[in-house]
Amino acid sequence: MDTRTPVDFYFDFSSPYSYIASEWIEALAARHGRTVRWKAILLGATFQASGLKSPVSYPMKREYALRDFERSARFAGVPLKVPEHFPIPTQNAARVFWWLHARGETTARHWARHCLRAYFARGVDLSDTTALKGLAVEFGLGAAEAEAVWNDPTWKNRLKLTNDAAIAAGVFGAPFFVIDGEPFWGNDRRAQIERWLDKGPY
Amino acid sequence: MDTRTPVDFYFDFSSPYSYIASEWIEALAARHGRTVRWKAILLGATFQASGLKSPVSYPMKREYALRDFERSARFAGVPLKVPEHFPIPTQNAARVFWWLHARGETTARHWARHCLRAYFARGVDLSDTTALKGLAVEFGLGAAEAEAVWNDPTWKNRLKLTNDAAIAAGVFGAPFFVIDGEPFWGNDRRAQIERWLDKGPY
Repeated sequence: MDTRTPVDFYFDFSSPYSYIASEWIEALAARHGRTVRWKAILLGATFQASGLKSPVSYPMKREYALRDFERSARFAGVPLKVPEHFPIPTQNAARVFWWLHARGETTARHWARHCLRAYFARGVDLSDTTALKGLAVEFGLGAAEAEAVWNDPTWKNRLKLTNDAAIAAGVFGAPFFVIDGEPFWGNDRRAQIERWLDKGPY
Repeated sequence: MDTRTPVDFYFDFSSPYSYIASEWIEALAARHGRTVRWKAILLGATFQASGLKSPVSYPMKREYALRDFERSARFAGVPLKVPEHFPIPTQNAARVFWWLHARGETTARHWARHCLRAYFARGVDLSDTTALKGLAVEFGLGAAEAEAVWNDPTWKNRLKLTNDAAIAAGVFGAPFFVIDGEPFWGNDRRAQIERWLDKGPY
């Protein structure tokens, strides 16, 4: 275990469990001297590569999942209400993330939290371009600037390459963490991650 | 929250996460004044009803799951090695469970733990009738008696009715817990279950 190695944190902007995890991963990593590399991906891409589907696409699992999203958030002390439009395509928010990331990881992380909180705590539909432009303006970006980014082949490609790299690294869902080469899938692996960071491999 | 209400615990004899949960659920419930109703089911039946499949039937998820089964067991302090034959059909062990259950819940629970530990800690293949008869003898049953039970339409039907009732109650996987009407799916819901038993609904 090398405490200088960052924690890789893969998330999708439409994943409730990613949102919950995004609210605790920074502090947890920091308590153990680690930084976090945030990686916006699209679950649509990992689902296609792995043959998996969203839990809400199976009626019996859907009913449970919708209940569990909110209960798991309450358990973690995170405000979450399943949005009216859910799940949604999130490539535009993710492309803006990678554009900001090229300028600095911190700003990109703030954008991620800004969008995740807007969607899951306030129900702002990130797939609605008008709503997303509004979030960009709230964040201090220009609406036209943000729109230009998500239509730019450079950032489309950056997201695609990230999805491909994630899949090559074995990522099949979100949130997905890789720590010292060890994979952890799900918000519910928090306690296992904490033990790993605290005491090393087990 | 009525502390006299038992915890319903649905498990499959071939489910590693059910095995891990079977090692902590009794003590956890007892600490909160609850009893546990053990219910042997077949994941094959719930998968068919829900359209779901085993995590190990998707190559990317399989690689992770095999690693996570053992890591989650170490995290819980439970001895587990993924058996050479995995997953396996477990209807015979489940039918013996329900036969014993008709005589007394405690004996049935002991049988469940006997078989789960044999399969996951020692690699005894529960789908091999010779091996299962050996386990029956270890448990104090007759080999011919056990075989007669799993071939008896009464116990075949008892298991089928239990699967049907589980599905009707929304059970789509294992381990699955229902506490005061609240569903919890997975060994990884342990902390949430503990909070529920401790402080009630949240």
